[in-house]
Amino acid sequence: MTAETPTSSEQLEVVLAAAQSAARPFADLSPSSRAAALRAIADRLDDAAAELAPIAERESHLSQSRLSGELGRTTFQLRLFAQTLDDGAFLDARIDRSDPDWGMGPRPDLRRVNVPLGPAVVFAASNFPFAFSVAGGDTASALAAGCPVVLKAHPGHPELSARTGELVIKALAEVGAPDGVFAVIFGDEAGRTVLRDPRIQSGAFTGSIRGGRALFDIAVSREAPIPFFGELGSTNPVFVTEGAVLDDADAIVDGFIGSFTLGAGQFCTKPGLLFVPAGAGMEEKLAARFDADAGPGAAPLLNDRIVAGYRAGLERLVDSGLAAPLVLGDEAYSDAPTPTLLSTTLPDFLANPDLLAAECFGPAALVIAYDDVSELTKVLAKLGGQLTATLHARKDEPIAAELIRLMSDRAGRLLWGGWPTGVVVSYAQQHGGPYPATTAPATTSVGTAAIARFMRPVAYQNVPQALLPIALQDVNSWGVPQRINGRLEFPAEV
Amino acid sequence: MTAETPTSSEQLEVVLAAAQSAARPFADLSPSSRAAALRAIADRLDDAAAELAPIAERESHLSQSRLSGELGRTTFQLRLFAQTLDDGAFLDARIDRSDPDWGMGPRPDLRRVNVPLGPAVVFAASNFPFAFSVAGGDTASALAAGCPVVLKAHPGHPELSARTGELVIKALAEVGAPDGVFAVIFGDEAGRTVLRDPRIQSGAFTGSIRGGRALFDIAVSREAPIPFFGELGSTNPVFVTEGAVLDDADAIVDGFIGSFTLGAGQFCTKPGLLFVPAGAGMEEKLAARFDADAGPGAAPLLNDRIVAGYRAGLERLVDSGLAAPLVLGDEAYSDAPTPTLLSTTLPDFLANPDLLAAECFGPAALVIAYDDVSELTKVLAKLGGQLTATLHARKDEPIAAELIRLMSDRAGRLLWGGWPTGVVVSYAQQHGGPYPATTAPATTSVGTAAIARFMRPVAYQNVPQALLPIALQDVNSWGVPQRINGRLEFPAEV
Repeated sequence: MTAETPTSSEQLEVVLAAAQSAARPFADLSPSSRAAALRAIADRLDDAAAELAPIAERESHLSQSRLSGELGRTTFQLRLFAQTLDDGAFLDARIDRSDPDWGMGPRPDLRRVNVPLGPAVVFAASNFPFAFSVAGGDTASALAAGCPVVLKAHPGHPELSARTGELVIKALAEVGAPDGVFAVIFGDEAGRTVLRDPRIQSGAFTGSIRGGRALFDIAVSREAPIPFFGELGSTNPVFVTEGAVLDDADAIVDGFIGSFTLGAGQFCTKPGLLFVPAGAGMEEKLAARFDADAGPGAAPLLNDRIVAGYRAGLERLVDSGLAAPLVLGDEAYSDAPTPTLLSTTLPDFLANPDLLAAECFGPAALVIAYDDVSELTKVLAKLGGQLTATLHARKDEPIAAELIRLMSDRAGRLLWGGWPTGVVVSYAQQHGGPYPATTAPATTSVGTAAIARFMRPVAYQNVPQALLPIALQDVNSWGVPQRINGRLEFPAEV
Repeated sequence: MTAETPTSSEQLEVVLAAAQSAARPFADLSPSSRAAALRAIADRLDDAAAELAPIAERESHLSQSRLSGELGRTTFQLRLFAQTLDDGAFLDARIDRSDPDWGMGPRPDLRRVNVPLGPAVVFAASNFPFAFSVAGGDTASALAAGCPVVLKAHPGHPELSARTGELVIKALAEVGAPDGVFAVIFGDEAGRTVLRDPRIQSGAFTGSIRGGRALFDIAVSREAPIPFFGELGSTNPVFVTEGAVLDDADAIVDGFIGSFTLGAGQFCTKPGLLFVPAGAGMEEKLAARFDADAGPGAAPLLNDRIVAGYRAGLERLVDSGLAAPLVLGDEAYSDAPTPTLLSTTLPDFLANPDLLAAECFGPAALVIAYDDVSELTKVLAKLGGQLTATLHARKDEPIAAELIRLMSDRAGRLLWGGWPTGVVVSYAQQHGGPYPATTAPATTSVGTAAIARFMRPVAYQNVPQALLPIALQDVNSWGVPQRINGRLEFPAEV
């Protein structure tokens, strides 16, 4: 399949049939075999870094240094999922031995393990041409779980998608993974067709609220609905108390500007709302940083779709008259916009949350001045689910504990100080949150826990040892942790 | 609120406001406090057994012995969730300490724990007036997770629901749980209203495919969709090989008849499809067991809705001409029907799966004769998701391993021998499966893992110890297991 040409119905049928055929043999691979496959993909991508970088730069307008870091993150992520497979805890193996004296009556021998859901369709994002695209987090976690992946390429970087897909397929073939485990398709209608196909058992997506909701609606309105893991949108509020301003206003100003303009503001974790005490001089400091020409300048956006969306969002905000321009240059609406800062008051914000808290994907943010810190407790109830929420405060300010609690009701990740851009891939990461941050609040799309999205448990009752999945056999030849009669046990070190 | 009168809009508003107010204080209770609440509910129910039993018998037409067993199962389940809370693993506490040398760049201190989703609406089932009703599995697991519960009573047992609800509320008050943590509401429209309310964060349901799908559609079409855990329908295929027939045909005949007629066939795990080798005499043996008047007789169904649905389903099957009556008495269509067995051939079954594999909730089953055992591998692809699938075979029959694998693609629980009715509540249970068995295949509605449905993870980045949730603090005063830098660690025994 060549980039930019939509995948034809005939080609889709080949892809779907191959994915279905590959599902059983791929599921039957040992975790260590699948780990080898992930490592092979990471190796091939690292080897091809010099070839991929110019394509990515041309198609995404992102800088070489940013893209190089992102590719490093991508291959690190693949290898971390390989380690997750080696660890074995992702299988959640449980063994209840038969027990005639079990409290509700005799208990049979019952054993439970996670199995792959089956073929997944993954919709790539525009803003991370590596880390949330062809070989990105959704692909890595679905393959780790044992699910074939049909990857719908993002139109923003077609050539990079095609080439990355070739490398992934080649790496999988090298380690002997079944044919059909991975394919890249092109075209929005092709993506929807695949999502509707009964052979597909789950969907994953990173992108806009509108696009993600449309796909979610397809997934849940199928004759047999399937899980859909959409990471949609977030404005990532940041609350700054007077104590924090007194401690280091300049660091907050610098940190905020750095974070909301990073990558031209094209991150789902961009801090779009900054709540500051009124009269503390924060607006003036922020504006001054740009007036002095020391602030970040213009940077090109990813593609025309993003430019159009950003312009429309910014115009809606400015034209509303509810947000005053704090920083708004002549080039604010260009294809390579200069950063924009708007400001408003807390009462106006609380009265117009739908307008003022809408995500504006690009280098813009809204500064909200509050008179009484206790009013901040009203903000979160006005916001939808968030990927992140950040608090800059002093530990001894009474509002801190209350805000942290309220933030935990609305967001997937809470930050004390610092800035939400930069999502580390690790064991304890949670990149998710209530709708519209995601369509599946119990799951994460970053970090090792992401593998759980693509699995479901199966219990085996009185099944003979030889017919049990290996992870549930008493000999435990894979050496995975097993929860036996309710207590977790680890295999002896060999 | 009194039974049988639909809950008014004004009353619903009171219930929803109270549930929302209770969410935070209930979430803040320690696991051991919530465990105490569950144990108090179990104690109050046990104390009231003599009072509840006659109400349950009158409203459900189930036998005293069956109801007594079910109440025992219900209080056992509450206490097992209490134990799950004491264990602490359900929190999945993870701590990644800051690490400047982390592979993708410096890692902040990142900690992750499961928090309650918020208020849940639980739709009670008709066929388990205790175990899947007011104080049943969904309520127990949602309360265990820390979520207030609005319980929509099943119209089949309104008085029992009202009285059980009073006992639950009283028990919760005794242990100091916040007001509003639990309420019982009546009326289908009231249930839908609650499901649509933005204060409700999840739904759970046990019942029919049609009813469950309608509620699922409401949950996912809200402005902010919420997780909906529906346990809908299943025909629970049982495959019998020639080897198994040779080993003990009579035991299979007895076991099957006992299982499909248990509780008048009103179990979601009723084996509705029995695949037997043609010409092995199984049909004759089954029919003979009823001819000899030794088989189970008539038994009343739960309520008029069930009677109407059972009659319509049975008529559709018989009138189709695709299934021949094997056992079909004069009373087969009455309010207290005698059991019915129909028979067909595998080719006819494979050609008409939608008609012949439809769930017929009541004491009926279909016996399918096959000529070639290898043809059984085609059956599962024709069936939707199943709660269970059962295989009676010899270990050395080559088909056994293949069928087990295929069964694992379609069902939540696989049985080797035995019968699917009787779902033990334990650590390794999985009561779920792909749609239409459930609307959430990664979850279970029976067993300790059911608690995970009502939680979502939250990550805390660089948050000071005193502001962290207790389960994430270094001192670990609750003594929960913590996964530290990717390795699970247990607190030292005190």
